[in-house]
Amino acid sequence: MLRLYHAPRTRSVRVLWLLEELELPFELVTVPFKAPSSEFFVQETPLGKIPTLEDDEAGVVFCESGAIVEYIVERHGEGRLAPAIGSPLRGRYLQWLHFAEGTAYLPLGVMVWLTRYRDDAEKHVSLLEDLRHRAAGGMAFIEQHMGDGPWLLGEEFSAADVMTGFTLTAARNLGVLDDRYPALMAYFGRIEARPAYQRAVQR
Amino acid sequence: MLRLYHAPRTRSVRVLWLLEELELPFELVTVPFKAPSSEFFVQETPLGKIPTLEDDEAGVVFCESGAIVEYIVERHGEGRLAPAIGSPLRGRYLQWLHFAEGTAYLPLGVMVWLTRYRDDAEKHVSLLEDLRHRAAGGMAFIEQHMGDGPWLLGEEFSAADVMTGFTLTAARNLGVLDDRYPALMAYFGRIEARPAYQRAVQR
Repeated sequence: MLRLYHAPRTRSVRVLWLLEELELPFELVTVPFKAPSSEFFVQETPLGKIPTLEDDEAGVVFCESGAIVEYIVERHGEGRLAPAIGSPLRGRYLQWLHFAEGTAYLPLGVMVWLTRYRDDAEKHVSLLEDLRHRAAGGMAFIEQHMGDGPWLLGEEFSAADVMTGFTLTAARNLGVLDDRYPALMAYFGRIEARPAYQRAVQR
Repeated sequence: MLRLYHAPRTRSVRVLWLLEELELPFELVTVPFKAPSSEFFVQETPLGKIPTLEDDEAGVVFCESGAIVEYIVERHGEGRLAPAIGSPLRGRYLQWLHFAEGTAYLPLGVMVWLTRYRDDAEKHVSLLEDLRHRAAGGMAFIEQHMGDGPWLLGEEFSAADVMTGFTLTAARNLGVLDDRYPALMAYFGRIEARPAYQRAVQR
């Protein structure tokens, strides 16, 4: 059995959404999200982080949403939601999968840290301006390079859309994703229309 | 031909080091590193980021060090430096590969931004304290979960060590990695002793 440790509105939404897309059986353990400003490993999961995944059959437990998404697709996806290794789309797939967290989420996460984990956001006006500008750069990059869609790899929806979709959800909530990016807004609309996404963000 | 856009002391060290480990032929294009505080995409590479990789044979160009490392191992590694999909070590491999950037590097990157890209670090003493504490948490997590070594997956050196090794190099330079973490210091010593690492950090 796959067991996902989840808290609403955190990166575990990605894993939950992926599991819903693949229609895999899993056990969901919902835990409260704690947000101290100087600690990472305080969540009530086996590794202190959200998300954490246990795969009983394989006897493994590990964290990092990107790792968990890749693992589930590789091991349980039966060829769905990712281009095969060596296929022409594979580099693009890996780029968007990592870009979602490594570049696009980065300033958003720092914004969340400054405005919601700490209580002195008013001291950081200049930093927040920089971050908003960086975050906008990430949106513009996706807008520019995403191609004609409907998904990041073209016709086929993939796990790269799952990684990116959560980042766009956060960007929308933080006021970073808006009508300055019409192609991205249309893409985000297609994401929000997916039943598996809707099921994931409601839990 | 593989063409890597590189700047010393940036994440492109990971890719350069990996290419050296695999002894693959490649072209190195060294560009100056620019560090504006509010922009991501200003580097003199095809996508504005460092690292960027071009693979002429496959006709692709993409960014994100984690994506590039995964791509090179998959497509050009001939089975080296990564456990096969479905192998018992695969989840652990993916975790460390993503953890290096997604968790461990995150506070280090923000420290670099506050202290080297901006000119008002003295205003951010409290933030830097939080970040130093978070970064220490990342080091402690690796120390606790890395196992008996010599490498993150045990006997076999892998691309997860390459991803993590660069993060530890940054942590060492920022004063975050020190004798509080004896296992990690010993591991970092083994990394520094690798000829491919030495060649990469010297270019």
